[in-house]
Amino acid sequence: MNGGGAPDGDCLARIFLTRVIEPGDETAGRWLRERGAEEVAERLREGGKPLPGTTDKRWAGLRARAERADPERDWAVAREAGVRFVCPGASEWPAQLDHLGDTRPIGLWVRGRPSLRMWALKSVAVVGARACTEYGAHVAATLATGLSEHGWVVVSGGAYGVDGAAHRGTLAAGGATVAVLACGVDRPYPRGHTELITRIAHQGLVVGELPPGDHPTPSRFILRNRVIAALTLGTVVVEAAYRSGALVTARAAQRLGRYTMGVPGPVTSALSAGVHELLRGDAVLVSDAADVVELIGEIGELAPERRGPVLPRDLLEPAAARVLAALPARGTAAPDEIARGAGTSYDDAVARLYELRSLGFVERHGDGWKLTRQAVIAVRHDRGSC
Amino acid sequence: MNGGGAPDGDCLARIFLTRVIEPGDETAGRWLRERGAEEVAERLREGGKPLPGTTDKRWAGLRARAERADPERDWAVAREAGVRFVCPGASEWPAQLDHLGDTRPIGLWVRGRPSLRMWALKSVAVVGARACTEYGAHVAATLATGLSEHGWVVVSGGAYGVDGAAHRGTLAAGGATVAVLACGVDRPYPRGHTELITRIAHQGLVVGELPPGDHPTPSRFILRNRVIAALTLGTVVVEAAYRSGALVTARAAQRLGRYTMGVPGPVTSALSAGVHELLRGDAVLVSDAADVVELIGEIGELAPERRGPVLPRDLLEPAAARVLAALPARGTAAPDEIARGAGTSYDDAVARLYELRSLGFVERHGDGWKLTRQAVIAVRHDRGSC
Repeated sequence: MNGGGAPDGDCLARIFLTRVIEPGDETAGRWLRERGAEEVAERLREGGKPLPGTTDKRWAGLRARAERADPERDWAVAREAGVRFVCPGASEWPAQLDHLGDTRPIGLWVRGRPSLRMWALKSVAVVGARACTEYGAHVAATLATGLSEHGWVVVSGGAYGVDGAAHRGTLAAGGATVAVLACGVDRPYPRGHTELITRIAHQGLVVGELPPGDHPTPSRFILRNRVIAALTLGTVVVEAAYRSGALVTARAAQRLGRYTMGVPGPVTSALSAGVHELLRGDAVLVSDAADVVELIGEIGELAPERRGPVLPRDLLEPAAARVLAALPARGTAAPDEIARGAGTSYDDAVARLYELRSLGFVERHGDGWKLTRQAVIAVRHDRGSC
Repeated sequence: MNGGGAPDGDCLARIFLTRVIEPGDETAGRWLRERGAEEVAERLREGGKPLPGTTDKRWAGLRARAERADPERDWAVAREAGVRFVCPGASEWPAQLDHLGDTRPIGLWVRGRPSLRMWALKSVAVVGARACTEYGAHVAATLATGLSEHGWVVVSGGAYGVDGAAHRGTLAAGGATVAVLACGVDRPYPRGHTELITRIAHQGLVVGELPPGDHPTPSRFILRNRVIAALTLGTVVVEAAYRSGALVTARAAQRLGRYTMGVPGPVTSALSAGVHELLRGDAVLVSDAADVVELIGEIGELAPERRGPVLPRDLLEPAAARVLAALPARGTAAPDEIARGAGTSYDDAVARLYELRSLGFVERHGDGWKLTRQAVIAVRHDRGSC
């Protein structure tokens, strides 16, 4: 469900369930898989005996929440705040989240213009300590800037420290960034990051499992990390003490078969000890964005000319097609020129460019964007056949 | 050949050859393996046609050196300076140097009391940049201190920077250290380390392939590194830029099947870039001495009680047997007490204790030394059978 129309029955049931069930609840995930969202929602609303695998006490807790839930209102409030709800299987749903099995999110609340699915295709997580050192903040920002310049989408958790530095580094480079929150996406947390998260919502995406107005809890922070890990192709940890939340993300990434990377630091720093522990395991040491891109970019990055568009042009959304048409046949153009050519805003043009990049039509070179060689050939071919 | 008696024919030929042939000369190594040192020395002395695998020009160069060589004098000068010459196969020869194949040293000039063979059995190399940062110097010294406290012998190259910090850290902890030089062992290099190297010769060992008075050259530094790698069970690199000499040691260690370890540092430091490159390969990340000991100590360190003496007591040299006899039946004793009990000097006692440790008789606990459980049992058994 994207913006406009009223949610269908499954979608409305899922909106209801995000208010009732905690993120990552595997038992509830099994109910959803076996019975579908509408039946589970109905059972929770009408009471009766608990669904299998839970206790009477936990069931009563869910029931109490169900009684207070008002999905139509949540949807209306969200819509008012420019927040949409994306269900599994919807066109914007990132299919890689299905790797989470029964802990897959019930749905995702999304704030921001771009397509989450498109952006996630070429995304990497940069996470780390909240109480990071200046070194950690510097490395996170530099890494994020470099990844943006290589055309990658930077995903993080919107927290203080490394997360904030990664988001800021991306925004400063005119890049694409996604904040995955452990609370309602209309309720920026931490409060001190209200401005940053608002900016991310304008230039990128703010997503989360919790319904409007809901607050974060320690377990929600931990469980949010599995979404960051699953959404991205790889996770880079920049500074983490032993038992850090960032290590949870890294281990989730490992379990999901994603690339897990760590930036080393001084062995005299407790904030690098967790990263070093990871690096003694299966994580790969990376020093900069080039290392990350070399590792996770595979053929695509090492030989970009081999990659062509993965979707025919005529299947592009009209807004994306207009941005594509605004690119010059040869050479690069700056996003503001492209925005003017496509008759749209700067932020929308950047969002579309990252989508088009995921689809293999365009590539970023420093500050400019250009058609990929394959896109040029495809355009010529299209013109020839018209 | 240890100290006293005049060298035999093979040994005198090798003393001669250390003056004529450069360290690590593989062609000359093949001559030695196929013909023996005496025949090779004779051929070089008498002239005639070149031995196989060399050019006329190179042969002429060797011949010119051979004419100037005076092995009896070298031996007398060395003896005067307290330097002995250890030939392959001699009781003090570290057998693991034979892994170098045709680049095995022709022999080693050795300064200092302990047995090189014994000390090398439980040794680890700590190497790195000459122009290291304060971080590198701190890490090297701390690591060396920790390794000493775990009873390991610390081997390095006597250079400024990381090497010097490693030697000093070991000496400060009353530990055992070996400097492997790229020049004559009676000619400390660099000059600014004269005092340090003299102290190492008093408390530990200074060894090298070059004869008395010979000077270092760039290629001698590089080739010295293979001796450090081969002598030790593993090499730890602390700070190294790309193309650093320490990386040569690490790669030599890898080729020889030794453990190769690296201490990470800030990715913003060019002096850690070489280490990080190593760590992206097969080298293992270590943060402190405990990590090193856990990796290379194997069963011996993880469960020291399982290791018993590897040599019957009655085969010990008398001086070592006296030190062993000076240890209390239970509990630890400080080296100065043990020295008094054995009627020897502090330095000699420490040297012997490290030898006895290599043989499984004693173990170090902080500043004290005690019999291993197996040694206690063996002592009881010896007493019982006498």
